[in-house]
Amino acid sequence: MIKNYLLAPGPVPVPPRVLQAMAMPIIHHRTPQFSRIFEEAEQGLKELFQTKQDVMILASSGTGAMEASVTNTLSPGDEVLVVNAGKFGERWGKIAAAFGVKVHELKVEWGKAVSAQEVQRLLDAQPGIRAVLMQASETSTTALHPVKEIAAITRQRDVLLVVDGITAVGVIDMPMDEWGIDILVTGSQKALMLPPGLAFLALSERAWERSKTAKTPRFYFDLKRERDNLAKNTTAWTPAVTLIIGLRECLAIMKEEGWANVFARHERNARATRAAAQALDLALLAPEAPSPAVTGMHVPAGVDGGKLVAYLRDKMGVTFAGGQDHLKGKIVRVAHLGHMGTFDVVTAISALELGLTHFGREVGLGRGVGAAEKVLLEALPA
Amino acid sequence: MIKNYLLAPGPVPVPPRVLQAMAMPIIHHRTPQFSRIFEEAEQGLKELFQTKQDVMILASSGTGAMEASVTNTLSPGDEVLVVNAGKFGERWGKIAAAFGVKVHELKVEWGKAVSAQEVQRLLDAQPGIRAVLMQASETSTTALHPVKEIAAITRQRDVLLVVDGITAVGVIDMPMDEWGIDILVTGSQKALMLPPGLAFLALSERAWERSKTAKTPRFYFDLKRERDNLAKNTTAWTPAVTLIIGLRECLAIMKEEGWANVFARHERNARATRAAAQALDLALLAPEAPSPAVTGMHVPAGVDGGKLVAYLRDKMGVTFAGGQDHLKGKIVRVAHLGHMGTFDVVTAISALELGLTHFGREVGLGRGVGAAEKVLLEALPA
Repeated sequence: MIKNYLLAPGPVPVPPRVLQAMAMPIIHHRTPQFSRIFEEAEQGLKELFQTKQDVMILASSGTGAMEASVTNTLSPGDEVLVVNAGKFGERWGKIAAAFGVKVHELKVEWGKAVSAQEVQRLLDAQPGIRAVLMQASETSTTALHPVKEIAAITRQRDVLLVVDGITAVGVIDMPMDEWGIDILVTGSQKALMLPPGLAFLALSERAWERSKTAKTPRFYFDLKRERDNLAKNTTAWTPAVTLIIGLRECLAIMKEEGWANVFARHERNARATRAAAQALDLALLAPEAPSPAVTGMHVPAGVDGGKLVAYLRDKMGVTFAGGQDHLKGKIVRVAHLGHMGTFDVVTAISALELGLTHFGREVGLGRGVGAAEKVLLEALPA
Repeated sequence: MIKNYLLAPGPVPVPPRVLQAMAMPIIHHRTPQFSRIFEEAEQGLKELFQTKQDVMILASSGTGAMEASVTNTLSPGDEVLVVNAGKFGERWGKIAAAFGVKVHELKVEWGKAVSAQEVQRLLDAQPGIRAVLMQASETSTTALHPVKEIAAITRQRDVLLVVDGITAVGVIDMPMDEWGIDILVTGSQKALMLPPGLAFLALSERAWERSKTAKTPRFYFDLKRERDNLAKNTTAWTPAVTLIIGLRECLAIMKEEGWANVFARHERNARATRAAAQALDLALLAPEAPSPAVTGMHVPAGVDGGKLVAYLRDKMGVTFAGGQDHLKGKIVRVAHLGHMGTFDVVTAISALELGLTHFGREVGLGRGVGAAEKVLLEALPA
């Protein structure tokens, strides 16, 4: 008897109420019924993004919205600065290059946050750069980047700030308009708690201006066409109806909890997990700038992290993420994204305690859980 | 954001696979399609009861099957011995009395198991007694009774042994035919992991013999009529179709896990919970004969158990059971019934640690979880 606990950074567990909404008979998308649902979802997305702009809903994974950001605002030969601090930073570079955009790469050591000063220095040194492409939370290294500080730099010049917020939107308070983010991207299977299949993005006024002259060829991801359809409460192409029905429900759940409470919960669960890691002597992957979306921990020397992750998943039903590239086999990543509560943290830490014991480490059973509980006590209502 | 964890002794969480089966469009009950499902469920029930007899499926709660046991085998004026060791023992007495059966009550201190020697003594002293009515696991006191030992006594004489196995069937190895139990009763919302609404019972050959002369009036619970219909793979009255579809699925899940593994898991989870109780200095309610279905613990002096249970349920989403009658406000009962795994135990103990801390007790955060984990390590596969 194995019960499954999905604790990887997406997909994350879908709340029962959302599953139930999505299990209802499907409806047609060119109907007033669907338009009402779409309109409500759109209102919720604007609150989520903290923007007055339209938030476009694409039937794609997050990578589709990353591509749309590039193809709608840049032309072949344009120069961009890519913050490459992990696998997803690297992906920005690949997308840009695929469309003939010239990439200046700012390499950041995995697990570290990019320095805003360094971004400023590079923008000064390379005045041809027209956009900065970066992550808010680099899922592969569990580090959080200083988006607000970088936005304060880019908004002073003719440089767009394009932010992959796939594991940050709905996790941290990131007011798009107030900070001056030009493009903000997210996906459905992270803090939004939906199955994969939808991506979302919003463009600032100046990003929309840029799109008028951007010469990169585009069709499916033509955002102008999406915006025109959005005004009619629909999408350019066939929308993923079921997922948008679920989206409305997920946004309603988040609004009922309250945005500030959602952010505080992610922060607290991440902090509890870090306290447990310390109690279990597991070094953090991003100790200086840890993301509240996901916590990376080094496995003890002598333990094969890949085997640990596979064992926990296949034999104990607990799905974490492992490491990629040079971190393969060396780390475990525990997500706090979405519909995660106190006992998800407890389960995660208990699974680590049991799993590490299985692989022959003396971890002090209950020590990590106790350290996490000390933080989780904050969550107890009066 | 509150996630719900149902850890009371029934209803218990229904496995997703069962929910899915029950969510399919309903079918008609007088059809070959339903008969096939019924037949498969019936085969599974025979394995569950470890009997060659038919296991009748009633659309009722467990109490309905308790009543059927009395009305189908006893006549007004008949004498019975009722083992009253808690709320459910008391119920046997009330049912018997309602139908004019004369009750000899064997009172047992709450939290204790009945003594087989004492049963024997009373049967010797009262030769008019025609049946012993008892629980296998007394849910209200979390004690386990020695059914096997008592069956060894009753099978030697013309006394039926009628066992309420509502929180025992599927929890402990209780071979009905081998031990010589005359009537065994269970309900759907316990180890069988179904929603409430079905009750099950099987009668030994001599119980069926008795039924021929039993004069208590009966109609809905006429077991002879049920047995005649069962031979045609249906029930006398309209069956609870959805629940029986779910029943087939639940029995399939239990068979896939293996009966011995199901029993071992309940025993291990209960033992882990008792180890945690000891580590947290919570006195057990039934230390000498603890049921593997549910563990009762005294709350520390000065803590209102009713408030603790309400707080955990309403504020933290964790549903335990409290105490009844003179135990009201004094105990908490944590169930291990059904689809319960390692992390359900961890969640239960963590909730107790957090809840007791909230009510001002120093419990040593993580200490109970650590003690439980030491036992749960046994569950880790190679």
